[in-house]
Order: sequence, then C-alpha cells, then structure tokens
Amino acid sequence: MSDHTYKKIELVGSSQTSIEAAIENAIAAANKSLDHLDWFEVQETRGNIINGKVDHYQVTLKVGFRLNP
Amino acid sequence: MSDHTYKKIELVGSSQTSIEAAIENAIAAANKSLDHLDWFEVQETRGNIINGKVDHYQVTLKVGFRLNP
Amino acid sequence: MSDHTYKKIELVGSSQTSIEAAIENAIAAANKSLDHLDWFEVQETRGNIINGKVDHYQVTLKVGFRLNP
Amino acid sequence: MSDHTYKKIELVGSSQTSIEAAIENAIAAANKSLDHLDWFEVQETRGNIINGKVDHYQVTLKVGFRLNP
Amino acid sequence: MSDHTYKKIELVGSSQTSIEAAIENAIAAANKSLDHLDWFEVQETRGNIINGKVDHYQVTLKVGFRLNP
Amino acid sequence: MSDHTYKKIELVGSSQTSIEAAIENAIAAANKSLDHLDWFEVQETRGNIINGKVDHYQVTLKVGFRLNP
Amino acid sequence: MSDHTYKKIELVGSSQTSIEAAIENAIAAANKSLDHLDWFEVQETRGNIINGKVDHYQVTLKVGFRLNP
Amino acid sequence: MSDHTYKKIELVGSSQTSIEAAIENAIAAANKSLDHLDWFEVQETRGNIINGKVDHYQVTLKVGFRLNP
Amino acid sequence: MSDHTYKKIELVGSSQTSIEAAIENAIAAANKSLDHLDWFEVQETRGNIINGKVDHYQVTLKVGFRLNP
Amino acid sequence: MSDHTYKKIELVGSSQTSIEAAIENAIAAANKSLDHLDWFEVQETRGNIINGKVDHYQVTLKVGFRLNP
Amino acid sequence: MSDHTYKKIELVGSSQTSIEAAIENAIAAANKSLDHLDWFEVQETRGNIINGKVDHYQVTLKVGFRLNP
Amino acid sequence: MSDHTYKKIELVGSSQTSIEAAIENAIAAANKSLDHLDWFEVQETRGNIINGKVDHYQVTLKVGFRLNP
Repeated sequence: MSDHTYKKIELVGSSQTSIEAAIENAIAAANKSLDHLDWFEVQETRGNIINGKVDHYQVTLKVGFRLNP
Repeated sequence: MSDHTYKKIELVGSSQTSIEAAIENAIAAANKSLDHLDWFEVQETRGNIINGKVDHYQVTLKVGFRLNP
Repeated sequence: MSDHTYKKIELVGSSQTSIEAAIENAIAAANKSLDHLDWFEVQETRGNIINGKVDHYQVTLKVGFRLNP
Repeated sequence: MSDHTYKKIELVGSSQTSIEAAIENAIAAANKSLDHLDWFEVQETRGNIINGKVDHYQVTLKVGFRLNP
Repeated sequence: MSDHTYKKIELVGSSQTSIEAAIENAIAAANKSLDHLDWFEVQETRGNIINGKVDHYQVTLKVGFRLNP
Repeated sequence: MSDHTYKKIELVGSSQTSIEAAIENAIAAANKSLDHLDWFEVQETRGNIINGKVDHYQVTLKVGFRLNP
Repeated sequence: MSDHTYKKIELVGSSQTSIEAAIENAIAAANKSLDHLDWFEVQETRGNIINGKVDHYQVTLKVGFRLNP
Repeated sequence: MSDHTYKKIELVGSSQTSIEAAIENAIAAANKSLDHLDWFEVQETRGNIINGKVDHYQVTLKVGFRLNP
Repeated sequence: MSDHTYKKIELVGSSQTSIEAAIENAIAAANKSLDHLDWFEVQETRGNIINGKVDHYQVTLKVGFRLNP
Repeated sequence: MSDHTYKKIELVGSSQTSIEAAIENAIAAANKSLDHLDWFEVQETRGNIINGKVDHYQVTLKVGFRLNP
Repeated sequence: MSDHTYKKIELVGSSQTSIEAAIENAIAAANKSLDHLDWFEVQETRGNIINGKVDHYQVTLKVGFRLNP
Repeated sequence: MSDHTYKKIELVGSSQTSIEAAIENAIAAANKSLDHLDWFEVQETRGNIINGKVDHYQVTLKVGFRLNP
C-alpha cells in the first residue's frame, strides 16, 4: 500500500434477486466513472416489500478506491 | 408518504438455505396477520452450527408497515 | 444450556461465490481444530474488487463453542 | 414507578412541517389504540426530498406505555 | 429451530430489589398474554434514586417468542 | 426502485433559526450541483454558542440521490 | 484554538415548546455558572407524554467550554 | 418535569459483593456533595480478577440530578 | 503495567441463579487453562426462558490476562 | 481498588505537535484542580486544517480520578 | 460559520512512520483538488503487518470543507 | 486472498513512549507464537496517569492472521 491515499464513497445498490447482486450492481455503477476500485464494506441491508414478498434488496456499501497519484 | 404513521416490529426468520430465504420466511410469517408491509431492515445475521456446518441461518430484521388510518 | 461455559472466536472467511459460502468456509476451517461449534454471529461483510467486479466476499464472524467440561 | 412493567413500540411519524409535528403525529396515532402512553425516545430523523426541498420529515421514535395490571 | 419465525418485543421491568428481579417481573408480565417465550436480551439498566438510594431498578429487555405456526 | 443505484454524500448545514432550516440549507446547497436528490438522514445535531445562546445550529446529514443511468 | 483545553459537561434541557427551546434552556442554565461556553452536541431527544400529547421535550446535550488558563 | 434542567455526571462504583452494591456505592458517594439525585444509567460493567475469582465489580454509571433553580 | 502485553478472550458464562454467578462461572472455566487472569468486561446479558421464568442467565464477557514474558 | 468511587470527566486537549501531546495537555490542565487522576480513555481524535495542513490535533478524552473519601 | 454548508468526504491515508503522518498524507492528497479544507475526524486506525512489524499505518478520516458559495 | 480463512485476536499493548510503540509492542508479543500476522485494527486507546502525567499508553487492538492451510 506504500503511501497511497484512498477515498471511500457510499452507495446503495438494489436488486430483485439477492444481496450479492445488489452489491455487484452498486460496484458496476461506480466502475463507470471511477478507476482503481479496490474494496467494499457493507453498511446496511434492507429492502422494500410488495404483496408480502421482498421486491428489492437495497444494500448500502462503502466503496474504496485509490486516488490517482 | 403524506402524513401516514408506520410501525416497525422485530422478527427473527430462519432458513436452512440462505440469508435471503430467512428474510423471506420472516416476512411471509408477518404477512399472515398484518397488512401494508412496506419495508424491512436487517439487524443481525447469525445461525446455529451442527457437525461443523451451518444448520440454520437466523436473520433478525425490522419490518415496517403502515398503520390503518 | 445448564451451567456450560462457551468461548467465542473471531474469524474472517472468504469466498468468490457468495456471503453464505464465506461463512461456511470460516466454520469449516474452525471445525478442523475445535469441537462443539455451536453458533455464529456475522460481524462485518466486505470484499475486494478486481476490474469492477467482486473478487472475494470476506465475512467476519464470531463462532461460539462449548468449552470441554 | 413501583413494580410496573412497560412496553416500548417503534413508530415512524411524518410531517411536512417540522420534526416536532412528526413526533406528535406518531404519538397521536399510537394514542388511538393504546392507553397509558408515557414517554418517547427519538431513534432517527430523516425525510424525503422533492425538487430540492424537504417534502416530509420522517421521525422514528420508540413510545413507552404501561402495561395494564 | 427448523424454519420457525420469532418475534421480539421490548419491555421495561422494574424492581426495588435487584436487576434480576426486574428482569423476572418483565418476563412474568409478558407471560400473561404470550405463549412460547423463549429468550431475553438486556438492552439497558437504569433506575430512579430517592434520598440518595436506588428506589427502583428499571431494566429494558427484548423478549423473543415463537410465532404460532 | 427497480435496479437503480444511489449515492449518499455527507453535508453539514447551518442556520441561526432552527434545526429544520439547517437541514433545508444543506439540501438547497446540494441541489445546486446534483439532480435527483431523493432523501436525507440526520447524523448529528450540534451548534456553536455565543454569549450563552445558540448562535448557529449545525446539522450533519447524509443526502441520497439517484445516479444517472 | 491554539493549545487551549476544553471541558464537556452533559445536560438535559426541557421545554414544552420545541427541541430548540429545550436546547436553549439547558445552555441558559449552564451559562449561569460557567464562562466561555463554546459549542453543544445533541446526544438524545426524548420526552414525556400526557393525554396522548407531548408534554415536554427533553434533550440531552453535551456543552463544551474553554477552561480558564 | 416542567422546564427544569438536569446535569449528568459519570461515576465508577465498586463492590466486592454484587453489581447492585457497586451502583449503590457510587450513588452514596455522589449524594455526599450533590442534592436532587434523580436517576442513574449503567454504562459499563467490569471488574478485576484475583486468583481466578472476581475481586471487585466496577460499574460505570451516569447519575442525573436537577440543577438548583 | 510497565510494557506488558495482555490478551482478551470472549466467553459466555451461564447460571440459573444470578448475573454475578454467570460471570464467576465463566472466569472459573477460564482459570483452568490460563494464568494471570486480570480483569473482565461484560459485553451482553441475556438468557433463556422456560415456562415464563428465567431458566439461565447467559453473560458474554471479555477476560483479559497478561501474556507470559 | 477496594470500595473507592471514581469520577470521570470529559476533556478536549489540543496540540500542534502530536496526538500524544494533546492528551498530555488535557491531563496537565485537569491536574491543576484535581487530585488522584488515575486513567484516561480517548473518545475522539480530530483537528482543524489550515492551508492544507493539520494546524491542531484535538483529542477528546475521559479522565478518571478517585473521589476523596 | 454564518449559513455556510460544508461537505465531508472519507479518506484513508497511509504512512510507514506514524498515525499523524498518515493523517497528513490524506489531507495533502485532498488539498490537491479541494479548497477550503477545514477540519478532520479520525474514524479508524489500522495497518498492515510484515514480518511481525507494522509496515503501514492506515488511518480512515473524514475531512470537512466549505462548499463554494 | 483466494479462499483463506483468517483469525482475529484481541490484544492490549502498552508503552511509556507513544501510541505507535504500544501497537508495535503488542504485535511483537503476538509474533512470538503466531505466524502470518497480516493486519491490525485499533479498538481503544487509553492509559494510566501518575503524578498528572501519562505513565503508560494502553492500546487495545485486533490482530488478524491467516490460519495454516
């Protein structure tokens, strides 16, 4: 890691399928505009309910990426 | 959301299959006696172990629903 | 539970597949050297990212086991 | 307080006006079906935004009431 | 635990004698109207003071019980 | 919410008048450069004191907005 | 701030009117016996209920003040 | 509670006997120099061990008292 | 304490009698295999319920001990 | 520790040099008016920035001292 | 502070030397692209270990800066 | 990290010199009996005071290491 500096941003990804897919969706969205995505940390898992079933998982995560030198 | 009031209850769902299935089981149980289930928030994920393998996932979640006007 | 005493240790399991698999991997590793594994509690879910995709899920969990009498 | 037992429920009140009004709305809704409401504790303050302005304050609170003897 | 669902409610028990008695009082009150009480978790211990002595211990606890199938 | 991704940023709004005004000021500032502001979550309420009176309320809040598709 | 040292005390202010008034009341009470009050941090917002309405807001806050050199 | 202001101080009481006795000891010590002690909140329970037995329970608590008008 | 290093382990003690007895039981169990037990910190107090009464108190605590030089 | 009671106060020390110096400065200030200072616990580390460099470290700490018997 | 709004970002600075140097490195990196850096708050201190020694301190901090009017 | 499992232990290191030295001392002690030490996370920073000065810094940290395959 030498003396790099990293930035962490907070995202909420969603998916109708699974917690893992909601995480992947958030990372894919971040990857469109940011380089060097390095790690993520799940902050919160929630979701909305329609007709007594989970409609979407919503996962809040922090994503860390290296700042360009 | 106009001026509705919501109530949140705390449930523990369990499943031998996955975290998502434990969430769905808890919501299905709540849906039997409550209308207007609207969202959930995962509070804790744990489980019991038998013979060195996960036997059941146990997910504590809060479920929010609109109070009848 | 009568008057047993339990010990809890903290592990980080990893998996390229899912959060559940990372949990199972940590428990399987603990099971090699410990008897009476009884329950687990997820502490943190994170992972590393390679090329804009999750490379590994890393789940920190506490594992409780009964101390030999 | 002698040896009374109290129960705490969790509500989310909303208001377009103020945080205090959201609290009052939640308590008024609880008061319709419960006696002996005694105190409240704010858990979280949030809200939704429309056109760059707060549309509703949403206040999560716990409300304590004495159980009937 | 198979696929049961559990509900957790939050109570405040009080006692002039001890923390344990305050817990027992809350559970006894819950037992009047609920079946299948299964476990409790202490959330907070406090009390009121009269003339420089503890007058009542007040213990906030969550009580978990199995929902009827 | 389909499969949208949201980003949350952290702001500190201030006001000499009220907590609500500090929240509105922070959201108005965010609205100048961001579209699709959707919700806020209060993180901390504090303020500075001059001559024994509140001079400014300072409210730290997270603001969530939808990322452009 | 050079090398000053500050002390923080914890107060609970109350008001029948608003959260802001409860904060002001606590600061005014502290100002009677302390100089150099500099900032406050809200710790908890709660209140008591009479006849299904908020009777008093009770706000716990920390107040920081500079120690005399 | 009308518009009173309260102050909370943090104490650590100790006892060789029980958690309750450690709480009582801290309150008794506070009562020597303060009037109007009104309530306490347990923050932490710990203790030291000598020869494999608890030697002293050490209970950190906050004690609230009304400020003189 | 000079430059000693300490290790903390996490245990769950249980007792049918009291919270203090559950703490003592956990420490006694640790004392069988570890020297220099020095202090404990209570992390969580819970228990199981049978027939509407506490059957066992279960206290999670950390126990600190000095590493052999 | 026999049956002594301790009090904890909260201070913010500052230093242009280091975190340790900010701690020492707060303790030195407390030592001017209090006897029997016994231990400290760091609560928060922050600081202000001038021209892109740390100008002062500000360390919030609790300081415990024995009450006179 | 009049009615300014501030933004807080989260960074991870690293250094082989000290915690303070890791903080300074993160602030220096932020200062390259942002004006009006005003304060920082340490969130977490960790690091990696090579051959039984600290190789890098990694300090997560929030940095606050004034938004341009 | 492929599918490795890691274990985290909790240590308290002490030093008369600095926070960094207390961390290094704890890691050096762990390194005597454990291989593959990989990272640490500071949990708490405290210390004891003698004659109004810091006598020892005491840093609680978690140390992670890879379990042997």
